[in-house]
Amino acid sequence: MKYGIAIFPSKQVQDEANSYRKRYDPHYDLIPPHITLKEAFDADDETIDELVVELKKIANETKPFEVEINKVSSFVPVTNTIYLKVEPHDTLNELYEKMHTGKFPDNKRFAFVPHITIGQKLLDDEYSDVFGRMKMRNFQIKDTVDRFQLLYQLENGSWTVHESFVFGKEYL
Amino acid sequence: MKYGIAIFPSKQVQDEANSYRKRYDPHYDLIPPHITLKEAFDADDETIDELVVELKKIANETKPFEVEINKVSSFVPVTNTIYLKVEPHDTLNELYEKMHTGKFPDNKRFAFVPHITIGQKLLDDEYSDVFGRMKMRNFQIKDTVDRFQLLYQLENGSWTVHESFVFGKEYL
Repeated sequence: MKYGIAIFPSKQVQDEANSYRKRYDPHYDLIPPHITLKEAFDADDETIDELVVELKKIANETKPFEVEINKVSSFVPVTNTIYLKVEPHDTLNELYEKMHTGKFPDNKRFAFVPHITIGQKLLDDEYSDVFGRMKMRNFQIKDTVDRFQLLYQLENGSWTVHESFVFGKEYL
Repeated sequence: MKYGIAIFPSKQVQDEANSYRKRYDPHYDLIPPHITLKEAFDADDETIDELVVELKKIANETKPFEVEINKVSSFVPVTNTIYLKVEPHDTLNELYEKMHTGKFPDNKRFAFVPHITIGQKLLDDEYSDVFGRMKMRNFQIKDTVDRFQLLYQLENGSWTVHESFVFGKEYL
């Protein structure tokens, strides 16, 4: 099965992200707004049981922290994905590194740029128009992160949560 | 915020349910296929923190169990919802009762009929046609349940997982 690891921001931030995603992100229906910590990777049941133990350890080593979002950015020219830029944070980097070492497959593809996608797979003209408008906007979002989620992908492309990992609250 | 509690069956069962939901269930995009344990209820953050503790206790008191699905049924004439009927199981009943007593709001509306919805809000003709075909089919699904999930609803009607509760594995 295909798994991934993500942080869901608060409902308020998800609602705001969805107000853009509804129009600009074809993945709107497949998963709630999220910060990806680990891109999709394949694992069998046995491996996942092992990784769940590792994820519990990681969660227990982590303290809740605050992320900030101040602006919209894009991955152009690599892809025309538009996203809420999550300001770099040591704890996010640590989580990312821990999930790509040891027992975890090292499926890093790009440098880690924490973000919440709000638009993707747009036509060039649409991208320019939307990004032009969005980049002018000021965002002042602060959001507390106290957990991450392990998800798996269904055949229709949507993602279901397998397990949540709450910082400092996991049983080992 | 509006919360609910549900069991996601295995990926295989979710994929099968989605093959019907895609055509017959307008909630297809809002939540993965699921067995509802507790219908939507309102709770503030403080209450949810208390209920999370209760849910951990319930999860720790519960052992993994197997559910069986042998046929499709419907809630006609109450609603024309078509569902995979989950055979009655003592543990499901116990979970349901525990989540409607004590600190939990008692938001029971109907008798508890465990099910996975695969169609709803159909026109009368469409309902008769779909249900007529589906009820002839034999299902022989056995699925192990080892967790349930607490979800909250976003403004667009979709549901995000707040926390998972794995039987016998919660930290209190």
